[in-house]
Amino acid sequence: MNDDLEARIRASFARQTIMETFGGELLEVGRGSVVIAAPIAPHLLQQAGSAHAAVAFGLGDSAAGYSALTTMPEGSDVVTVEMKINLLAPAVGSRLIATGRVLRAGRRIVTVQSEVEAEAADGSRKPVAVMLGTMVPVTA
Amino acid sequence: MNDDLEARIRASFARQTIMETFGGELLEVGRGSVVIAAPIAPHLLQQAGSAHAAVAFGLGDSAAGYSALTTMPEGSDVVTVEMKINLLAPAVGSRLIATGRVLRAGRRIVTVQSEVEAEAADGSRKPVAVMLGTMVPVTA
Amino acid sequence: MNDDLEARIRASFARQTIMETFGGELLEVGRGSVVIAAPIAPHLLQQAGSAHAAVAFGLGDSAAGYSALTTMPEGSDVVTVEMKINLLAPAVGSRLIATGRVLRAGRRIVTVQSEVEAEAADGSRKPVAVMLGTMVPVTA
Amino acid sequence: MNDDLEARIRASFARQTIMETFGGELLEVGRGSVVIAAPIAPHLLQQAGSAHAAVAFGLGDSAAGYSALTTMPEGSDVVTVEMKINLLAPAVGSRLIATGRVLRAGRRIVTVQSEVEAEAADGSRKPVAVMLGTMVPVTA
Repeated sequence: MNDDLEARIRASFARQTIMETFGGELLEVGRGSVVIAAPIAPHLLQQAGSAHAAVAFGLGDSAAGYSALTTMPEGSDVVTVEMKINLLAPAVGSRLIATGRVLRAGRRIVTVQSEVEAEAADGSRKPVAVMLGTMVPVTA
Repeated sequence: MNDDLEARIRASFARQTIMETFGGELLEVGRGSVVIAAPIAPHLLQQAGSAHAAVAFGLGDSAAGYSALTTMPEGSDVVTVEMKINLLAPAVGSRLIATGRVLRAGRRIVTVQSEVEAEAADGSRKPVAVMLGTMVPVTA
Repeated sequence: MNDDLEARIRASFARQTIMETFGGELLEVGRGSVVIAAPIAPHLLQQAGSAHAAVAFGLGDSAAGYSALTTMPEGSDVVTVEMKINLLAPAVGSRLIATGRVLRAGRRIVTVQSEVEAEAADGSRKPVAVMLGTMVPVTA
Repeated sequence: MNDDLEARIRASFARQTIMETFGGELLEVGRGSVVIAAPIAPHLLQQAGSAHAAVAFGLGDSAAGYSALTTMPEGSDVVTVEMKINLLAPAVGSRLIATGRVLRAGRRIVTVQSEVEAEAADGSRKPVAVMLGTMVPVTA
């Protein structure tokens, strides 16, 4: 992992104001894999008291997008073309942890997936969502 | 549209704390169709300055979910099984308006779509996302 | 609709040998919209006797792809990046009719949808699937 | 893996006439995982000469569906609610091999994925598609 690439991703992440709103934290940046976590906080819930699907989606989308960016030429930014999320269980617990990974890095199209887990207070994790999507490079 | 059903949906919407975070407003509740809007606000952006995809997703998911709920038996709550979003244009402008609609209401499975538009300051609208997903009833 | 464009699409369709296997017929070619039909035939079924989802998928994918091609520069071919299908009802009856449409034609990315209907012997139709996907141009 | 369950899946597979049309073969049946292969045959191609996406879709959908069925109560049949496919590379080579797996087996909803690989004449394999979908049990 190039230090400069990680620095550029951290700078981009810092510009995503929604990540501050979500309490998002960039846990890991590796080539083709990025991990983002955020607390399951009282201002992010749906009607039954678990985190709204938009939170898992947002963390997973950003994790997948930055994982794609690690495979793109310098000077690129990344845009989500489409993303699908299948929800596996209610997002309850202490925090959500989204791991984005590149499945195939083409020159024009990067196929990505994310797995989102809910971490309990005791540190145990369970899957809450899986995502499959498409990212493209754009000129930054 | 049954007044009681609309009241139940408004009460459920009010419990979605993320909608307060997003500035979400329930504009219309009709049988099989629900409209939710939210300002494109400074705390909801991605790195390039448009609204993060999680916002369009969240508004569209809730609009679609509540549209599904209008077709479900009294006493039901609604859960998203899966949702796909295709992004058409950057989410820039004054606010996002998400219209959720029921495509097919089965007893166990409700298929839904959402269209998300960005409204400019002059009131003109352009499509920013389309969504296609699956909702199921659960006991409230 | 340019005659030459329609001729090119009909020639491309004729090279899709699976369409002969499916009994597929190109019913309409318009700018941004293409219709393909095929009989629900005994060699195309799933275990319960309706047409296998692969048939609706294949017709809808080709209809959507050719609708995208009508918006691309001359000399392009079209490739499916991804496609999602939501199944609404069993594909039973006389034939399937898939209508592909362009939702947004970008230079690099074309977002498409398809609706697949089953036609009964009396000519009545009911929706069996909706699809939402992404097409890209490639050099032919 | 219960012998009776495998026998029931093999009997169901044999009723899928499209699998005979595709030349499909049930390679493996395990609890939560099913593998189906089919030759890339001259009657299954798209306009550029690779297997049409409907073939990868059909194999992956059936593999995923039967993997879901292995987790369902006796007497169930399985229905696809929705399925998304992301295409990674042209489906060229000797045959396609689709591996379906259960990601989460709920009582009402089973979330599945499939990976489809193209096998070359020398036995080497490369990924051509990934799929993510939803299956439900129905009374057989």
